[in-house]
Amino acid sequence: MAEPMDYASAGVDIDLEGAAVASLIASLSASSRPPGTPGAPVDLPGGFGGLIEFGDSLLALATDGVGSKLQIASLLKQWGGVGIDCMAMNVNDLLCVGAEPIAFVDYVAVPKPDPETHAALGASLAEACRLARVTLAGGETASLPGIVTELDLSGTALGYVKKGNAITGEHLESGDVLIGLPSSGVHSNGYSLVRRVMEHAGHQYTDDAPFNVASVGRSVMHFEGNDDSQFTLGEVFLNPTRIYCDPIVDLLKHAETTESEFALSDIRAICHVTGGGLSNLLRLHGSLGWHIDSPLAPHPEFEWLQEVGGIETREMYRTFNMGTGMILAVSKQHAETICTWLNERMIGTQVIGHVHDQGHKVTHAIEGVEFSHY
Amino acid sequence: MAEPMDYASAGVDIDLEGAAVASLIASLSASSRPPGTPGAPVDLPGGFGGLIEFGDSLLALATDGVGSKLQIASLLKQWGGVGIDCMAMNVNDLLCVGAEPIAFVDYVAVPKPDPETHAALGASLAEACRLARVTLAGGETASLPGIVTELDLSGTALGYVKKGNAITGEHLESGDVLIGLPSSGVHSNGYSLVRRVMEHAGHQYTDDAPFNVASVGRSVMHFEGNDDSQFTLGEVFLNPTRIYCDPIVDLLKHAETTESEFALSDIRAICHVTGGGLSNLLRLHGSLGWHIDSPLAPHPEFEWLQEVGGIETREMYRTFNMGTGMILAVSKQHAETICTWLNERMIGTQVIGHVHDQGHKVTHAIEGVEFSHY
Repeated sequence: MAEPMDYASAGVDIDLEGAAVASLIASLSASSRPPGTPGAPVDLPGGFGGLIEFGDSLLALATDGVGSKLQIASLLKQWGGVGIDCMAMNVNDLLCVGAEPIAFVDYVAVPKPDPETHAALGASLAEACRLARVTLAGGETASLPGIVTELDLSGTALGYVKKGNAITGEHLESGDVLIGLPSSGVHSNGYSLVRRVMEHAGHQYTDDAPFNVASVGRSVMHFEGNDDSQFTLGEVFLNPTRIYCDPIVDLLKHAETTESEFALSDIRAICHVTGGGLSNLLRLHGSLGWHIDSPLAPHPEFEWLQEVGGIETREMYRTFNMGTGMILAVSKQHAETICTWLNERMIGTQVIGHVHDQGHKVTHAIEGVEFSHY
Repeated sequence: MAEPMDYASAGVDIDLEGAAVASLIASLSASSRPPGTPGAPVDLPGGFGGLIEFGDSLLALATDGVGSKLQIASLLKQWGGVGIDCMAMNVNDLLCVGAEPIAFVDYVAVPKPDPETHAALGASLAEACRLARVTLAGGETASLPGIVTELDLSGTALGYVKKGNAITGEHLESGDVLIGLPSSGVHSNGYSLVRRVMEHAGHQYTDDAPFNVASVGRSVMHFEGNDDSQFTLGEVFLNPTRIYCDPIVDLLKHAETTESEFALSDIRAICHVTGGGLSNLLRLHGSLGWHIDSPLAPHPEFEWLQEVGGIETREMYRTFNMGTGMILAVSKQHAETICTWLNERMIGTQVIGHVHDQGHKVTHAIEGVEFSHY
């Protein structure tokens, strides 16, 4: 057996990325927009950035791209899901502060424009707008043959939340309950490692997946024209990232109504499980700890990736979502009610753990899956 | 003399880009956000997209990148201006609907993160935020070695305007006066052609500019460490795009005050002179015409590019801003007052022409510089 694979050996230097971003941030100065005026920056207790004042509301912008998952889409010329991926990466981030996404713009950089690709992207973005319930408020396509060798897709989502209703993590306390919402697969993080495993194993994306893709709480979509009962590895790994606007926006709105048993204050924190996997939980609070005792079952492709790539279990949980795309921390008192409410709208949702005050770390039913820094 | 150069021969296929964008747009469906709710799309008479409802305001998003100007920055490792370029391309678009920019997010794609480059980009973005008076509300750096061969930078700006105050061009009429605001040079459009001319002529960006760069209404910045009195071609072509928030936001605010001689309704339309040059004016109205009889003097680099590249005059005006970065169409009655007000804040601003009802075209003091479609 060769050396076990990990994310760094797949060519992603997280420390270097961190250093680069830190350099950029260090160069920035305070906003010139004074408090109380439109656009003034708001510092939320949880350390979330990106919110600005706007009258009785806060506005939030999220910007992100699809990343190296696009390389699989380029290879297969399958663009049907990447608009959804792009939307999801942005709107799911907005949901974490309790913001309702309302609009989106896309940025596409290509070596050469191709009407067929753009038609497929447009259809994917239209579907994404429908799923996220946002307006596509613009976009840009840039031809940059000297800069990009294949298509890059990123976007920016705009959301809002009423002042005072932002979800910040500041009311988190020991005993709060963690509710996990199922992912639809690998989503849009960890694809450098996915691609490395595929290459290492000598598999083609057109090969049938050597496992049963059926999994609670998600469906995998066939590419157009493929009517086989078996799914290909390409179909599995291009399955679009789940968009959680429905049910989370509806949950937050319901919590504000008089017929709700629970209040908005019972929803303490929301975590989008992206790059860094479960270690993302550490960003929600400065001292509390997180224990996952009843995790959702990872989809079969995770098990396959681990086995074929010889990847250590902890590395899997630090790189991938492992079946859980979003985690809500809610009050113990109303946890069951909230979980039932969510499960009726997103099957597979369940209580997965709790918050404790035994140290700022993430622990898991699987021994060794433990994180003390993001 | 070789064939005259033009934008298409420099590798930019505008028709193909148009077809690709049309394919994307054709695939989009109507927004699911109903009129009267936050995020519902607003169709302005002038055909400007991108505005959405938000209470008593309209919000606007603009997204754009710096384009192939970045390739010169990469070559010279000079990142001090590109953050300003990125900001300018976006906020100047927002100004055209009368929106005040309030926030910005950046997206950087690199083959490999480099802390030094990011520090320089951060400083440039910080300066850009100061110039545009916006809050930097987030950003993303993506490492995409399989997709980009060098740095790509794009961004999204958020602006707002009170309902009813959007500038749409719907009140334009024959006799309205055109006021030109000076550009700072080539800005961020036409760089495929700039690079082609440089290559054709065998010039290095480190060569001294073979012309006097002094020009009314702009200054050129030296790169750090260059104390020569003469500017290099690299310094001239990387001079950052002008940001017009100051004076345009202030003009619009002033027009709403009681001490103003002119009203907001006297400002009929605003045009950002980007790719397409003066033909951008055609987008402001469906039938009126535009005559430029007293153009601002083009900066000396435009003359040099034309001469060295053997570029036809009409092609120059269809590709570059030719010295005028923004054009305001204002009522004849208050044109002088508005022009004086602007010139006190941006030297070089002057009346350059007028609106007429003799056909939907742009004409110019220079014969042959005429456009009848964008």
